[in-house]
Amino acid sequence: MSATPLSKRFGTAVRRRRIEAGLSQERLAELARLHPTYVSMVERGVRNPTLDAAARIAKALKVTLPKLIEDAEPPDKGGAGKE
Amino acid sequence: MSATPLSKRFGTAVRRRRIEAGLSQERLAELARLHPTYVSMVERGVRNPTLDAAARIAKALKVTLPKLIEDAEPPDKGGAGKE
Repeated sequence: MSATPLSKRFGTAVRRRRIEAGLSQERLAELARLHPTYVSMVERGVRNPTLDAAARIAKALKVTLPKLIEDAEPPDKGGAGKE
Repeated sequence: MSATPLSKRFGTAVRRRRIEAGLSQERLAELARLHPTYVSMVERGVRNPTLDAAARIAKALKVTLPKLIEDAEPPDKGGAGKE
């Protein structure tokens, strides 16, 4: 029943934090030691990153991975109703 | 300089929680809708899981993914000295 997969929401969270940090995709990729294409695909949610790649991205954004994943979690987490 | 990659420590955290929950690897795999071989490899740290697979494992263990990753983080995180 889950709507959007985490990887997709994670990409949106990465992009938001990257822009807030004033980094280009290329610079983020460099800091995280990942390929720029990989970072671009993760941000667009078309690539489901591995845990280690996600951790490298989080570190480059100066945030912990748990925090970055929490950013990506749906706000209604825990609720069960329609309200 | 980072010693053990997160994926390796994550596997240890998964195994600990799975045993605490009284689940076999096969049952965890079934609950997470993953292949038992994949779960086994993740637990042994020989496979770096994707974010979506990690989220399915966390859900099957009735824990949030951020919490499961925190379990896997080294206790000295944030410290810089040798003490």
